[in-house]
Amino acid sequence: MKFSEYFIPTLKENPSDAEVVSHKFMLRAGMIRKVAAGIYDYLPLGLKMIRKIENIVRDEMNSAGAVEILMPAVVSAELWQESGRWDIYGKELLRLKDRNNRDFCIGPTHEEVVTDLVRREIKSYKQLPINLYQIQTKFRDEVRPRFGVMRGREFIMKDGYSFDASEEMAELSYKKMYQAYVNIFTRCGLDFKVVEADSGAIGGNFSHEFMVLAQNGEDAIAGCSSCSYGANVEKATVSADSYPKNIDSQKYRMEEVYTPDLKSIDDLSSFLKISPDRIVKTVILSDGQNVVALLIRGDFEVNLIKVKNFLGWDNIFFASESIVKESTGSDIGFIGPVNIKCRVIADFSVKNMVNFVVGANKVNFHLKNVNFEDIAAKIDFADLRNIVNGDKCPKCGKGVISIFRGIEVGHIFKLGVKYSEKMNALFLDKDGKQRPFIMGCYGIGIGRTAAAAIEQNFDEDGMILPKPISPFDLYLLSLDYKDTEVREVTDKIYTELKSRGVDVLLDDRDERAGVKFKDADLLGFPYRVTIGKKNLQQGKVEFKNRKDGTNILLSIDEVIGKF
Amino acid sequence: MKFSEYFIPTLKENPSDAEVVSHKFMLRAGMIRKVAAGIYDYLPLGLKMIRKIENIVRDEMNSAGAVEILMPAVVSAELWQESGRWDIYGKELLRLKDRNNRDFCIGPTHEEVVTDLVRREIKSYKQLPINLYQIQTKFRDEVRPRFGVMRGREFIMKDGYSFDASEEMAELSYKKMYQAYVNIFTRCGLDFKVVEADSGAIGGNFSHEFMVLAQNGEDAIAGCSSCSYGANVEKATVSADSYPKNIDSQKYRMEEVYTPDLKSIDDLSSFLKISPDRIVKTVILSDGQNVVALLIRGDFEVNLIKVKNFLGWDNIFFASESIVKESTGSDIGFIGPVNIKCRVIADFSVKNMVNFVVGANKVNFHLKNVNFEDIAAKIDFADLRNIVNGDKCPKCGKGVISIFRGIEVGHIFKLGVKYSEKMNALFLDKDGKQRPFIMGCYGIGIGRTAAAAIEQNFDEDGMILPKPISPFDLYLLSLDYKDTEVREVTDKIYTELKSRGVDVLLDDRDERAGVKFKDADLLGFPYRVTIGKKNLQQGKVEFKNRKDGTNILLSIDEVIGKF
Repeated sequence: MKFSEYFIPTLKENPSDAEVVSHKFMLRAGMIRKVAAGIYDYLPLGLKMIRKIENIVRDEMNSAGAVEILMPAVVSAELWQESGRWDIYGKELLRLKDRNNRDFCIGPTHEEVVTDLVRREIKSYKQLPINLYQIQTKFRDEVRPRFGVMRGREFIMKDGYSFDASEEMAELSYKKMYQAYVNIFTRCGLDFKVVEADSGAIGGNFSHEFMVLAQNGEDAIAGCSSCSYGANVEKATVSADSYPKNIDSQKYRMEEVYTPDLKSIDDLSSFLKISPDRIVKTVILSDGQNVVALLIRGDFEVNLIKVKNFLGWDNIFFASESIVKESTGSDIGFIGPVNIKCRVIADFSVKNMVNFVVGANKVNFHLKNVNFEDIAAKIDFADLRNIVNGDKCPKCGKGVISIFRGIEVGHIFKLGVKYSEKMNALFLDKDGKQRPFIMGCYGIGIGRTAAAAIEQNFDEDGMILPKPISPFDLYLLSLDYKDTEVREVTDKIYTELKSRGVDVLLDDRDERAGVKFKDADLLGFPYRVTIGKKNLQQGKVEFKNRKDGTNILLSIDEVIGKF
Repeated sequence: MKFSEYFIPTLKENPSDAEVVSHKFMLRAGMIRKVAAGIYDYLPLGLKMIRKIENIVRDEMNSAGAVEILMPAVVSAELWQESGRWDIYGKELLRLKDRNNRDFCIGPTHEEVVTDLVRREIKSYKQLPINLYQIQTKFRDEVRPRFGVMRGREFIMKDGYSFDASEEMAELSYKKMYQAYVNIFTRCGLDFKVVEADSGAIGGNFSHEFMVLAQNGEDAIAGCSSCSYGANVEKATVSADSYPKNIDSQKYRMEEVYTPDLKSIDDLSSFLKISPDRIVKTVILSDGQNVVALLIRGDFEVNLIKVKNFLGWDNIFFASESIVKESTGSDIGFIGPVNIKCRVIADFSVKNMVNFVVGANKVNFHLKNVNFEDIAAKIDFADLRNIVNGDKCPKCGKGVISIFRGIEVGHIFKLGVKYSEKMNALFLDKDGKQRPFIMGCYGIGIGRTAAAAIEQNFDEDGMILPKPISPFDLYLLSLDYKDTEVREVTDKIYTELKSRGVDVLLDDRDERAGVKFKDADLLGFPYRVTIGKKNLQQGKVEFKNRKDGTNILLSIDEVIGKF
């Protein structure tokens, strides 16, 4: 492809509305343009990258035995009412009415449509398993669309759905998809981690997220140094036995200390000259009706999801000053468990502690040398904190946890019978009995994968795209395409490489060398070949590797031989 | 692909709701399933056919220098308000509001979005011409969706848009697209005709439709026997000199004849023993305010669009009985131009007539031997009828017109500055002056092309698909796949042909031979190879050509050699 015949409107300046690297570079490289909030045009370069990702996805899905279909974007409300999601799904569902005033929505996922299709067409266990997928434009009316195509409203997604006759078969389908996803992101050239995840709004039995590792990723992930364990920080279990035994040989007597204005753990720890892991924080939580005091070691953070699940609450929030005052009689900053009036729960991190420091329920005072005997209330212990760097791996028990940042690009769910039961999607089993299909669902954000690839691979000059998903393999930079000799050599290399199936972008523009070099770096294809008059006198052209920055002189034959 | 691992839910019975052949066979062959009125799932076989068409379209568009992009499906109302189409477009535009109560629509075409993109990115004539296209899911909220994907509400379309700096360049872009479309439909293996068309609601300068010829096509097309002329019947011109001169040597005297209850041309012609071309029909038309009487030869039909354009009316309809009575004093069936009170216009077909028959404006009476001298009113003559078989070609004047039935699969428009002026989409010309882009737009209904291909190629047993767009090249029918020998030979042929790039569907199902043969005919791939125990004893397999029905015995090597 010749630059002059293509459409790559690159920008010299950083767009002011781009908050993250991928959004910035996708705009600057002329890959996308905004049409409305969270709604984008894909320009040729962006679309070419999307198609390369789609082709890898399609290839691996097909190899895993999944079959491609295409469901409609506009979906009748009836189906969503059957599953119950019409009422549950909030404003993110883009609803509309047709000319006959019937309700429709633009599907953000397609569990209902595919379940409807399968219940009409599949009648017997003999026709199972079946795994149907599509690559399609979807819409989710996000409250705050941002980061370009990373969190857009209209987006391209691969969504797949498996139907099985038994739990064992369904787990096999799930495993196949797990492996297909590993293959997909590996083939895309991405550094990723698979983590256990909450199944969230879609619901169901269990689920894994595929995370592309990137400094600016929205999610925090815990990974083990020695086994394959990975989990979203919110979900990762911290084992009860991961705390050192008490180091004090005896228990001392509780005493009150004057701690003027010392509300934070850091201030308290400096003032008392003890490390934060000798202090117990007391946090007051509520669901609007009930109140609990939660104890946690000073250097850890509460995991509200774990607390919520442990208590069986529907909501959870940090109690307001007035609720705190009412239930503890204390002010925030000086709360403590001794003689507290509400229920007390504690993270495992405090279980082995002795002689610790807590708030005195009295402004400007703490208690030191506190032990559990000093606390009147009965305490329930549980895993209620976020996992942190250095924690023991909850899976192998040997490795050490590190926290990574990542971007979710894929998500697989074992759904079970959540949809098939509600929608009465049944098949006849071996014994002639009607049973609901056991389902799984499997999504990949295609645009998101492109953005995540950029978040993982860039430098200050631009993108450094992995070869398998780079729109072009090679930036063929002709320094003076008007010059007959330069043009002849350029055309020769261009034609020869194209005939070898290399995806070449030939920069034939009548622009200054500086502009072309800057665009080549910005666009970030794996290789750049530069053809200029000076080097041609020695029969040489420049061959640059965008990733490692090496730049060598090669003969024309040698350059062609590189591909 | 093995049948057992794919998803082709064929139907034995004709679906009751399918009115046309393509709809019927697409349902029966398991290519599509209805989700809601005019909204369909594409199942694997249907989608595979769609993809083959898309690839041909993409290839020819790229070769013609067009560049692929992808615009959003959900489009802001602001852009449509700028072009004025938000108010003009009726209920076919699916409108909706997002969570912030902003107006959006699902784009049925994308003139506004692409014009907005180009006005932001293209500033100079040096960047022109540019031709951008996409293949995308669109929505048009049809009053009466029907015929499956032929006239659906949600549909897949290729829409392209050219931008030029001058009329000459714009015409060149138009010609390139014209040629690309000819190449596309030729490569799809379709018998089609290009016709001149009205530019309709999209507006603009001129336009051509690409019509796939098919008995049950919705449109009637006039084609010339000797030149390349083709036009929609509604649009085709009938030249003024295409009528024979009067055959009577002298004019007779007008006289009244009693014609009891004879209201139709046919009845009148039998009763009076004259041919219909000696009778002049008088038709009363109105726009709600004005009334005209139109004279036309008894064997022709009025073309209301031509009349409307001739009179400069906004509406046109046949006058009701009361209006007829009021303006002519007569009853329908006996109206005539003699002494009529309203304005009279006439089709060229009556201009040379003498001694003709007309209504007497008196129940049960006609006048015979009428001549223009007998009619008091002044008459304006024009081309106001539908072209018919046997008419002289209006272009070359030599050939004879035949009427074909066809299905519109492509439509190209030279738009001019219709959108660029309204949306202030300007570029700097050579003289540094700002001018609006000269635009063209080019659409292909992808799903419609698939349906049209079936309407053109079928027999009572099923589809007979053109090879380039058939989902598979070959139906490999194994009569007893459980038999070791049959299976070995089948697998050998399957593997060998797949390695040669042949798209093979292997029917490995445990079904009766009859079921398999029926499905093979229904699915209509170009070739069928049948492997059975009996023929294998002679080392032979059957090779059947679906189109011509020939069925020959070949050795395994010979069969493989066929591909």
